Amino acid sequence: MKRSVVTFLSDYGLQDEFVGVCKGVMLKIAPDLRLVDIHHYILRQDIRHGAIVLQQSVGFMPESVHLAVVDPSVGSERKAIAVETQSGQTLVGPDNGLLMPAVDRCGGFLSAVEITNDEYMLSPVSHTFQGRDVFAPAAAHLANGVEPSAMGPALQRSELQGLEIPKAWVHDDHLHAEVLQVDRFGNLQLNFTWSELEEVGLGRDTGKLEVRMEGHRLNVTQGSTFADVVPGDFVLVEDSYSQLSLAVNKGDAGAFLRAGARSTVIIGPLNS
Amino acid sequence: MKRSVVTFLSDYGLQDEFVGVCKGVMLKIAPDLRLVDIHHYILRQDIRHGAIVLQQSVGFMPESVHLAVVDPSVGSERKAIAVETQSGQTLVGPDNGLLMPAVDRCGGFLSAVEITNDEYMLSPVSHTFQGRDVFAPAAAHLANGVEPSAMGPALQRSELQGLEIPKAWVHDDHLHAEVLQVDRFGNLQLNFTWSELEEVGLGRDTGKLEVRMEGHRLNVTQGSTFADVVPGDFVLVEDSYSQLSLAVNKGDAGAFLRAGARSTVIIGPLNS
Amino acid sequence: MKRSVVTFLSDYGLQDEFVGVCKGVMLKIAPDLRLVDIHHYILRQDIRHGAIVLQQSVGFMPESVHLAVVDPSVGSERKAIAVETQSGQTLVGPDNGLLMPAVDRCGGFLSAVEITNDEYMLSPVSHTFQGRDVFAPAAAHLANGVEPSAMGPALQRSELQGLEIPKAWVHDDHLHAEVLQVDRFGNLQLNFTWSELEEVGLGRDTGKLEVRMEGHRLNVTQGSTFADVVPGDFVLVEDSYSQLSLAVNKGDAGAFLRAGARSTVIIGPLNS
Repeated sequence: MKRSVVTFLSDYGLQDEFVGVCKGVMLKIAPDLRLVDIHHYILRQDIRHGAIVLQQSVGFMPESVHLAVVDPSVGSERKAIAVETQSGQTLVGPDNGLLMPAVDRCGGFLSAVEITNDEYMLSPVSHTFQGRDVFAPAAAHLANGVEPSAMGPALQRSELQGLEIPKAWVHDDHLHAEVLQVDRFGNLQLNFTWSELEEVGLGRDTGKLEVRMEGHRLNVTQGSTFADVVPGDFVLVEDSYSQLSLAVNKGDAGAFLRAGARSTVIIGPLNS
Repeated sequence: MKRSVVTFLSDYGLQDEFVGVCKGVMLKIAPDLRLVDIHHYILRQDIRHGAIVLQQSVGFMPESVHLAVVDPSVGSERKAIAVETQSGQTLVGPDNGLLMPAVDRCGGFLSAVEITNDEYMLSPVSHTFQGRDVFAPAAAHLANGVEPSAMGPALQRSELQGLEIPKAWVHDDHLHAEVLQVDRFGNLQLNFTWSELEEVGLGRDTGKLEVRMEGHRLNVTQGSTFADVVPGDFVLVEDSYSQLSLAVNKGDAGAFLRAGARSTVIIGPLNS
Repeated sequence: MKRSVVTFLSDYGLQDEFVGVCKGVMLKIAPDLRLVDIHHYILRQDIRHGAIVLQQSVGFMPESVHLAVVDPSVGSERKAIAVETQSGQTLVGPDNGLLMPAVDRCGGFLSAVEITNDEYMLSPVSHTFQGRDVFAPAAAHLANGVEPSAMGPALQRSELQGLEIPKAWVHDDHLHAEVLQVDRFGNLQLNFTWSELEEVGLGRDTGKLEVRMEGHRLNVTQGSTFADVVPGDFVLVEDSYSQLSLAVNKGDAGAFLRAGARSTVIIGPLNS
């Protein structure tokens, strides 16, 4: 099935030529391709960060081949894979778990292949830049309508490397959570939703909560948007991906708290 | 009127997926759209910075829908607007002044609407990412030829939030000015032109000037390009947007002076 | 000859509107153009860095006009040039050596012109942003099929500014080398290949080497990929451009050694 769009997520950054070279390679193979950069500043070699961003973004993309490369084991024995999903999206990347939360978001696993056919790779394949030599060419050929089965042998879902994004857990009247990611505005995306907070009796209408984090003990207002508190105050809002997010109105929660991805957080009732 | 290009300016940065997701949303609505990134590193929530860049850039863009999002009050009562200009450009963004200097640059205001019709938004509309849910979809639908009047009620110019970019002012034989923005090379763009400098008798041919700034008292050569002074020396040049700019040839004026946007500057004759 | 792609390399960064404005200018002239960003974080005004990246990248790009702007002498007498190569690529940029290593990579020099015809420039031409006013318009017009000879007078190769990328040199059983560039992962690309290392009797099979650099004396394993050493160890690998590269598996060699472009390196046998 031909596709006109390839989306691209990586930890390559834009300070090097890596992304541009992958695009050149794809356009040589598929000159009419539309390329959409989702994100290239995934934390270096941080598969979990890439998986979180890809999972949250993929639903907003047109029907595409989604190329994703966060590949700390490049050149080793990890497989290169292409996965078809129930919703008709195709994902291409290393078999290290990066793609799997997005596969689940796209209706679930339909089929997969290991990319082994060197007809669809650059030659020679380097040991250090397989985004250019393996993944980008495969994505472009798939967009051109090459059948996944032409790329290599089928893989069962059980043969693919999984990845669990940690869930918050309940202890007494508290939720033990962690930061999934921090954005440019310093908003801290947490690994739970309103409904998970309600499980400990702390729903949307509870008013203030206590948040303990990085040595701070904060009184935080639950709001529906940043402006529900005065500038400089903390607010817990549902973010645009339905995750709860700890923010400072017109401020930078991440910088203030010196918090980042994987920082742990305990949320509970005030004065508990 | 159909448009093939949407330009995009924001303070989203490229360290998050925000820009990529907005592009995915637009391409789902208008698959053939050309997307041109003007700038995504507007200082966070700095409406004035976004307005200055948009105003200076818009004239170099093809006939387009210009999507601009710097939106510190996202989720509050500020309106979402689309503005048509006399020169045939369409601007989409929050009603916080961001668009208005560019509207003036595009021949002035022709008409505007408030974007209220949720047929042209994603559903649900989040409280924290209306670039994705409101502005990007509106821009794509407008590019597809949807009439602005279909998006919501008409607004008069007087109903729109204005924004004044401060002008330099004269005191005796001095000009009191400020820095509009600093570029990657450390060049400090100032808020006046040659003709405004001539008003205090300090035209192009005056030779050296005194510039007081951030505790420094500098002897600055007026030049027509950086290379009019030796490497390391200060030079006052007309920049490519006809603003005067304080630069160091092959150096970094901003870093040397520790100056940034809004730094104040006093320019006058030498030894005054 | 019409071209559908313009690639773009510069030291403009993405923190300013420079790149976006150049793209707008090109799309006004050639609305169907495909634009591929190779790199915009060339070290500021570092012609050599730009030349290295362009040379290494150009072979992965489709047949294109390659626009490259690293231009510390903008506004001075340096020429603006367009160069045709034996392999059918066209390069546009300042005559300061930036383009020449890429010209050699593209089969060598075929012909060149000085861009002087102001029909193919914006008017007026600023003294400080000729990427926008001269180079981008020329690239777009060339992609549109304008003959280079229409742009200005022919130049011989001998009239063009050259640029030598320094080569490693042999002293006894050591190689004196330097760092060409550092990537986001801290991998240090060096200015020699396996075959040059073999000239001092230190081929792929020698096992460990001694690397002296920035005050460190390192025992470095030769490997074919990062994972040939345990995480945290140094490894010398052939990178994806056939240059040797000093890396730390899952680490950051550049940060650890405080090394950067132009850092000097001495490679020899262990315990010498």
